[in-house]
Amino acid sequence: MNYKLVFHILGMILRVEAALMLPATVIAFVTGGGDGLAFLLSAAVTMTVGQGLTMLPGKNMKMQARDGFAAVALCWIVLSLFGALPYTLSGVMPNYVDAVFETVSGFTTTGATVLTAIEGQPSGILFWRAQTQWMGGMGVLVLALALVPKLGEGSVYLMRAESPGPIKSKLTPRINDTAKILYSIYIGLTAAEVVCLKIAGMPWFDSVIHAFTTISTGGFSVKNASIAAYESLTIEWIIIVFMFLSGVNFALLYFALLRNFRAVFESEELRSYTFMTVGASALIAANLVFHASWALDARTVTDSVFQVVTLMTTTGYMTYDYVLWPTFSQVILILVMFAGGCAGSTAGGIKQIRVVLLFKNLRREVQRILHPRVVKTIKSDGERVDEPILSGITLFFFAYIFILLAGALVVAWDDVGFTAAFTASLTCISNVGPAFDVLGPTCNFFFLSNGSKIFLSASMLLGRLEIMPLLLLLFPSLWKKR
Amino acid sequence: MNYKLVFHILGMILRVEAALMLPATVIAFVTGGGDGLAFLLSAAVTMTVGQGLTMLPGKNMKMQARDGFAAVALCWIVLSLFGALPYTLSGVMPNYVDAVFETVSGFTTTGATVLTAIEGQPSGILFWRAQTQWMGGMGVLVLALALVPKLGEGSVYLMRAESPGPIKSKLTPRINDTAKILYSIYIGLTAAEVVCLKIAGMPWFDSVIHAFTTISTGGFSVKNASIAAYESLTIEWIIIVFMFLSGVNFALLYFALLRNFRAVFESEELRSYTFMTVGASALIAANLVFHASWALDARTVTDSVFQVVTLMTTTGYMTYDYVLWPTFSQVILILVMFAGGCAGSTAGGIKQIRVVLLFKNLRREVQRILHPRVVKTIKSDGERVDEPILSGITLFFFAYIFILLAGALVVAWDDVGFTAAFTASLTCISNVGPAFDVLGPTCNFFFLSNGSKIFLSASMLLGRLEIMPLLLLLFPSLWKKR
Repeated sequence: MNYKLVFHILGMILRVEAALMLPATVIAFVTGGGDGLAFLLSAAVTMTVGQGLTMLPGKNMKMQARDGFAAVALCWIVLSLFGALPYTLSGVMPNYVDAVFETVSGFTTTGATVLTAIEGQPSGILFWRAQTQWMGGMGVLVLALALVPKLGEGSVYLMRAESPGPIKSKLTPRINDTAKILYSIYIGLTAAEVVCLKIAGMPWFDSVIHAFTTISTGGFSVKNASIAAYESLTIEWIIIVFMFLSGVNFALLYFALLRNFRAVFESEELRSYTFMTVGASALIAANLVFHASWALDARTVTDSVFQVVTLMTTTGYMTYDYVLWPTFSQVILILVMFAGGCAGSTAGGIKQIRVVLLFKNLRREVQRILHPRVVKTIKSDGERVDEPILSGITLFFFAYIFILLAGALVVAWDDVGFTAAFTASLTCISNVGPAFDVLGPTCNFFFLSNGSKIFLSASMLLGRLEIMPLLLLLFPSLWKKR
Repeated sequence: MNYKLVFHILGMILRVEAALMLPATVIAFVTGGGDGLAFLLSAAVTMTVGQGLTMLPGKNMKMQARDGFAAVALCWIVLSLFGALPYTLSGVMPNYVDAVFETVSGFTTTGATVLTAIEGQPSGILFWRAQTQWMGGMGVLVLALALVPKLGEGSVYLMRAESPGPIKSKLTPRINDTAKILYSIYIGLTAAEVVCLKIAGMPWFDSVIHAFTTISTGGFSVKNASIAAYESLTIEWIIIVFMFLSGVNFALLYFALLRNFRAVFESEELRSYTFMTVGASALIAANLVFHASWALDARTVTDSVFQVVTLMTTTGYMTYDYVLWPTFSQVILILVMFAGGCAGSTAGGIKQIRVVLLFKNLRREVQRILHPRVVKTIKSDGERVDEPILSGITLFFFAYIFILLAGALVVAWDDVGFTAAFTASLTCISNVGPAFDVLGPTCNFFFLSNGSKIFLSASMLLGRLEIMPLLLLLFPSLWKKR
């Protein structure tokens, strides 16, 4: 590993983080919640360490794939460790493990929380919590690339390691321009949602927070009852639309802006995503109406669609405590949590394109028995997918399930029952937020042991960075100096 | 598909099944349980249909891979449909879906049951139930190949489709000789266990039944309380040893008989299987002693080892109702149900060799980031594993998890809770038997809907035939006449 280079990137990213603590600092002082000094101190410590790291001597700035992947993995870990400081220094979370869990849950846009009461927390803390999600959604390094273009051609590895999906869309020849386009769409969507929510009757502060955590598909709220607290179908449908959009590949949103609608309508991933959203919502509505005797009205339909979209885009808001639904509806929700949104969006999960390609690959495998001598290539949106990408996807799937099951085992030590242990692990690696049973949407992760919290934090990072960059850190040969 | 050939194989296999109904018929008449006529009638119907199918006109006996795979898939379905007749005709299971579920559970050596009370059933029925497991364990077609050697070289496809594992051991150049060797070991193990159990104090009838269902890793018992009914540590340890042996690749058992111990000790699969058995047992014992305050005595150790071995070899007996154990122990048991025993054994599950190769493949995938230009081959027991086998294994894993989740969704419609729905699906595709929660080892599958029973029957067959042959039936091009 090129230590000099990796330290330099770490330092740069910490300086960016320190700067991004300033809005919360201002809000903390203005609202007088008593958390202002904590933010000031956190920003100062983060800036000092970041400055120190960038000033280490050395010259070699040539980046290889391994450096890029390791830098991204380490950045996310270090960002979380420093981002947790305000929670602990302000006294909101005296246990630093809790603070790290909450910060990782923020940056990875998971939304699982250890806060037992959200209302009544200082405004600065609530703002920082939502802002970590907004920063993590599109990627902190992608943001840094948009702002600091001096990493040169090596930056393609950073982008590759941080943005989700097996096939990367290249919107422009230059990586910094791509980063700028993505962030422009991201900011545009956020601003549009703030305005819509405000018009629908949500207070300014709540609108900003919820726009931050919708577009990033994070799911942190300022209310214990989440979106249910507003008791407004209008607000719920506004959020449904923005959650759905945020789960779409941003490259497609860009094409739509350029009026290239053909690319949008021909996307197999978008079709699978839409089909799954509609199908799952319909199955749940049918289950609720015909099996559990709910009324077939706007409330039932909205709750069905809202919970499907919020869990499938891995946002994790709540309009109804779905733990009270029949088992069938709950299993539908668990299944959409596996799949998640589209690659190149802010959503987590396995991603729709991988699901599509896994099925195509499985079909080809069975066809091999029928036609042993035919070599068939697999296409996605008309273009041939290379074999290493296909085998990478199936191995990704295996790693995903393995980490999911390992997490279930760790959480099981806390004796919460299989459903809670399994879904807690799933909600973390898929970056959703709430789980089921005693870890459902009206509950929180506070009562779990530190061991579970640390493993689940790792699991959230593994899910967000799509596993490989973090697994890389386990290989001793990475750590050899170059 | 070569219809003539497939019908011929189906007819032949039905005639074998009819003949194999005779022992149960004799027992039924001798014990006077009132089920004798049911068996006689079932055997007559089965024999007539079988005879009819073999007499269809036509000459083309050339077998291709697709014919072999389709024949095996169809044979297992047809065997189950006819094998269910005695249950329904005797009045023990008036619902034919129940009878098919029980028969599939038998042939696939799963051991999940719809019988609400086992004691008090006619002896002929109990014998047939155990005998279906014994027939299914080593494979009905393998048995037919050992007896009827006239299928020629095409029979390699039948063997390949029916015997579990991604890499087939070739013990002898001729497939019929291999089948004979495998069945000799199988019969030898069964006889040895009958003698051991009898000496340990089990009645003759019970000894034969339990030997049938141990060596086949099936798990049907003649007692409601399963092995716990005998209250004998000696019997439990005898069964532990025979279950463990039955989960070992029979090729290795053959090498051991030939005193080729080097091949045995160098087997990576056997090492993984042994390590997982010992590790899981130790973790459960530790959990019970340190977490749930059990005494550290022979009872606790035996229960820990017994339940691990019985679920990991996918047998499914019970010495203690593990649903009462802490969550951690239960999740350990669920995890070993995924892995299962060795390839080429009578055990189900994903199989140890696949687990080993999945991890090796994942490690290689991460190493690709470190050394992008190095092409690394993967070895198993010192021999190179071909890439198509590796990609076949990862796709098998995906198909396995997909069917598991689909099954959980189907069973969830019966509103049994996520834990029961998920583990019912897992226990069926892994051919284990008991599940968890309300479908635990002291419960049964009787109260599930017909829809769940039909899906789970399909799932058991998918697990036993390792998915691909049955998926093949879904492809329209298979059904074109050749």
